[in-house]
Amino acid sequence: MIIIGEKISIIAKKVREAMNSRDPKPIQELAEAQWKAGAHFIDVNIGPAEEKGGELMTWMVESIQKTVQAPLCLDTTNAAALEAGLKAHNNAWGRPLINSTSNEPDRFIMLELAAKYNALCIALTLGKGSLPADAEERCGIAAEIMGRAAEYGVPMEDLYLDPLILQVCTMQDQAQHAIKAVKMFQELNDPPMKTVVGLSNISNGVPKDMRSLIDRVYLTLLMYEGLTAAIANPLDKELMDVVKTTEVFMGKTLYAHSYLEM
Amino acid sequence: MIIIGEKISIIAKKVREAMNSRDPKPIQELAEAQWKAGAHFIDVNIGPAEEKGGELMTWMVESIQKTVQAPLCLDTTNAAALEAGLKAHNNAWGRPLINSTSNEPDRFIMLELAAKYNALCIALTLGKGSLPADAEERCGIAAEIMGRAAEYGVPMEDLYLDPLILQVCTMQDQAQHAIKAVKMFQELNDPPMKTVVGLSNISNGVPKDMRSLIDRVYLTLLMYEGLTAAIANPLDKELMDVVKTTEVFMGKTLYAHSYLEM
Repeated sequence: MIIIGEKISIIAKKVREAMNSRDPKPIQELAEAQWKAGAHFIDVNIGPAEEKGGELMTWMVESIQKTVQAPLCLDTTNAAALEAGLKAHNNAWGRPLINSTSNEPDRFIMLELAAKYNALCIALTLGKGSLPADAEERCGIAAEIMGRAAEYGVPMEDLYLDPLILQVCTMQDQAQHAIKAVKMFQELNDPPMKTVVGLSNISNGVPKDMRSLIDRVYLTLLMYEGLTAAIANPLDKELMDVVKTTEVFMGKTLYAHSYLEM
Repeated sequence: MIIIGEKISIIAKKVREAMNSRDPKPIQELAEAQWKAGAHFIDVNIGPAEEKGGELMTWMVESIQKTVQAPLCLDTTNAAALEAGLKAHNNAWGRPLINSTSNEPDRFIMLELAAKYNALCIALTLGKGSLPADAEERCGIAAEIMGRAAEYGVPMEDLYLDPLILQVCTMQDQAQHAIKAVKMFQELNDPPMKTVVGLSNISNGVPKDMRSLIDRVYLTLLMYEGLTAAIANPLDKELMDVVKTTEVFMGKTLYAHSYLEM
């Protein structure tokens, strides 16, 4: 199970302030803490970053990779900023992951950048206006994106299909559709397509003290259906313990009394 | 999801002492606490009870049902004690559940008692010496028990098939076989067969502080495959919260911010 650490995000006040003042320390600390907690990628969410996006992403990538030997997940809708991040990224520590392309025309360029920089790419199964109604619709969108990826020269094994997790508190039935989509996505190719979710979307809007519980039960179900990766909070020890325990039940980790410490 | 409260068991020293001295209070307190925590049945495990088993089970059933208006799960290998319990049981509070028949000849009598007293019956898919190797073997045993139940006049809807949960720390691959068995059992009849597990068996032998985590992740997976009931600890609030959350994801509970309090 691949964990993409979600904590370096413009949504967090501390991170936003550090970005604005170009103070690397809070960002580097978050990167290091997530890396030590078992994250495989560090997400770098700078938002739309319409002004000086390229310079900001370059500074972020360099600041973080100075501290941790981790590949990054570059998270912005600004293609120019994304390209700057790809140029700055140290691929000796793993290939970068683009977050994200989708079926919306302004996101097609992300596939072009993935091909150009040999990057991995998240593909959000969203497009053409409305939210996908069910797993089948998500598969239809995934197939369109896969066809486009092939045209751009992005190999299928470099795509991570994202079913678009919606909040359970207002769209409860979508939780099941997304689990089913994770299962169905894998069948769209041989070898199976890889899958990813933005986990914490599921608990958006629920009381704060219930969020971790909801996230970790949902992640167990997604993993059971074969999920490859999750953008999640590796500093949530209970979540990470549940990930490790689910891997034991799926036979991906050999049981040892110390498996939680691995 | 039906929870069968497991706390009144001869394995617990406090319970054993209360049984021996015929002190109802500790037993009644445990019954009440489990009932209030959401148990649907209270398990009454008196062990083999070779001496005065009938008198003990009668006393247990009467003591518990004086305090809580709950149906009981009568748990002993002693058929005479079990029959005494069935006679004493107050069916106005629900039908009793026999724990358990199996494919071992000395357990066939439990089906006879189920038919005679209109009781529900757990059927452990165990028999003929060795442990079942996989889900398919469990299904074969289940089919034999189902055939026998029909001969004895026990309706299929009154049987709860139990895949026999084994400890993950020494028989890790059995954890997956048992999940698969829960899924396959349901397909043995239409309407689907009901299923039950003795949950805490999964974490037998693991460090004590990891048991609840292991139990609750495993229960989530079993529930996802359609488990009907679990013999478990309803006083483990984290476990009960996971049960409720899994039911939200399966669409069995409508989400409300207060669903954990229901």
